[in-house]
Amino acid sequence: MLVVHSEAHRRHAPRQFLVRGALQPSAEQPERADRLVAAARRGGHEVVAPGALPAGAIEAVHGAAYLGFLRDGPAAWAALPGAAPEIMPNVHPNRHMAGRPTGIVGLAGQHQADTACPVGAGTYDAACAAAACAAHAAAAVLEGSRSGGARVAYALCRPPGHHAYADMAGGFCYLNNVAIAAELARKTHSRIAILDIDVHHGNGTQGIFYDRPDVLFVSLHADPNSYYPFFAGYADERGTGAGIGANLNLPLPHGTGDDVYLEALGRGFAAIRSFAPGLLLVSLGFDASAHDPLGVLKLTEPGFAEIARRMAALGLPTVLIQEGGYLSDHLGGLLATFLGSFEAAQAK
Amino acid sequence: MLVVHSEAHRRHAPRQFLVRGALQPSAEQPERADRLVAAARRGGHEVVAPGALPAGAIEAVHGAAYLGFLRDGPAAWAALPGAAPEIMPNVHPNRHMAGRPTGIVGLAGQHQADTACPVGAGTYDAACAAAACAAHAAAAVLEGSRSGGARVAYALCRPPGHHAYADMAGGFCYLNNVAIAAELARKTHSRIAILDIDVHHGNGTQGIFYDRPDVLFVSLHADPNSYYPFFAGYADERGTGAGIGANLNLPLPHGTGDDVYLEALGRGFAAIRSFAPGLLLVSLGFDASAHDPLGVLKLTEPGFAEIARRMAALGLPTVLIQEGGYLSDHLGGLLATFLGSFEAAQAK
Repeated sequence: MLVVHSEAHRRHAPRQFLVRGALQPSAEQPERADRLVAAARRGGHEVVAPGALPAGAIEAVHGAAYLGFLRDGPAAWAALPGAAPEIMPNVHPNRHMAGRPTGIVGLAGQHQADTACPVGAGTYDAACAAAACAAHAAAAVLEGSRSGGARVAYALCRPPGHHAYADMAGGFCYLNNVAIAAELARKTHSRIAILDIDVHHGNGTQGIFYDRPDVLFVSLHADPNSYYPFFAGYADERGTGAGIGANLNLPLPHGTGDDVYLEALGRGFAAIRSFAPGLLLVSLGFDASAHDPLGVLKLTEPGFAEIARRMAALGLPTVLIQEGGYLSDHLGGLLATFLGSFEAAQAK
Repeated sequence: MLVVHSEAHRRHAPRQFLVRGALQPSAEQPERADRLVAAARRGGHEVVAPGALPAGAIEAVHGAAYLGFLRDGPAAWAALPGAAPEIMPNVHPNRHMAGRPTGIVGLAGQHQADTACPVGAGTYDAACAAAACAAHAAAAVLEGSRSGGARVAYALCRPPGHHAYADMAGGFCYLNNVAIAAELARKTHSRIAILDIDVHHGNGTQGIFYDRPDVLFVSLHADPNSYYPFFAGYADERGTGAGIGANLNLPLPHGTGDDVYLEALGRGFAAIRSFAPGLLLVSLGFDASAHDPLGVLKLTEPGFAEIARRMAALGLPTVLIQEGGYLSDHLGGLLATFLGSFEAAQAK
């Protein structure tokens, strides 16, 4: 399978995030990508660097003020006396106040949803490179579908993207890679489906397409009532306006294993089949694994293989886009199993 | 002058807050109240403990869900593996997501506006005691006005209150002491004015009364564009609905000294005179002092004396309610000067 990856991800190496009242080392480390790309190579997959991003690809999803914050914020932040090396917000607009400050601390609150998306000097470049991986993989699959070539590719994106809103970073994410790929695919296909199997609800992706009838968003994730992102991912979030019915959340009880997961996945697949998209984009996290350090869901490696098989059996041109999945001895193996299983099923 | 103070403030001793990307020791320490009460005693003022809070006084301002969070949250938080001693939020509802989780991390994001209002095991009791001080002082002034007795009192509240919304803590504040006093005073007076001279905009107080024509809110504060609370305190915030015109923000350039401050204060006084309130409540911070560790405005001690004189010259029954002002060698002196100057002017 074509694997698209950029070494530029290394420019983003977040130091820490605030969780349960303490600053902890960030779990979203460059080593994640190192392990994933090594596993892809061991699996015999071709790894290529992405081409340049198509003009306007990022801007089709993200606003100029937000992009300016990601690009220019670190220099403004560094000028604050005593500031830590990475931008981290400490106060946000809320349901009672919505002023629009131009100072960097206010911009941080405006453009960072939480304390798990610190912005450093290399974050913007790394995020652009990740978006380029997603765009490249999508272009390859679209071209393959047209020409009878490969109908699947994998974008090894880091940093991930699915928690990023149009104007806001969040949860290790800065640019929404899957949304950028979706907008590119929309140029040639009238209906796109996004399936998010990261253990966290893809709140950014949902937010970007919430009023859109042309992009179906389906997410399986740990029940957000006591899990990130907490304030989105509930089953009653079905879309708004013209987008009503094009958003399907399937929150799962913590501790859910393969059987219950696959049953919910079947409901997601049914929605996708019924939507009849021209392309399937998958927000592919491995953090629902029982071996992931998060450990909130309990999928096995054979469970991931079965997910891949059933996904391939949809018969859709498919772009796999890396989201979460954290350092464990199983991370690389999960990817190799997933890609191998998908390819084997597609070849049948 | 009657000074109302409770030793119960000690039960709240916040350890830290997140600012500029790092956890720093909280500036809102018990020693603040120790220095203030010592200065009040040295100034010859009578210091009394508050009576019990009138039934329903807190509930007239704050919702049951929020009060439950303050009271019961610390036990739920302590049950989280690896949680720090104090509740500190790391993800909040925002303009894109507004789900209502019941887990403690979600409740923290729902009920804490920022990282500067950690909730510990003693926070609720201390905040109730501070509210009782404000209520007691207000009752004394209301009674004094009726009976020809004292028409001013000072509530030495700690923790402070003016950043607390009806359903949300923020910026060292948990229960909005001045709002609680205002609602008590509303039982006998149809119009109440609140003047906030803390260096930070009183966003919580503004939020509580934003749609109310019966409570005038006037705030002088450092320009929030690059200063807490960042997202409120702008001059164009004039109230909403029936409350339009009953909210006056006077943001001041950073570095403002006595002359410009007193000129703006004159505009605030004009609004108060025109409103003709039955009672004046003052959110009294000393953090606009040039000697305050914050140092963003540059008021002198004679400047504070002049503020007190002009405030007394309004001739209104007045309750002074302590808000901010942080540890410096000048903190106690500023209070003594303020109370002395007010009393001297009122006696004329």
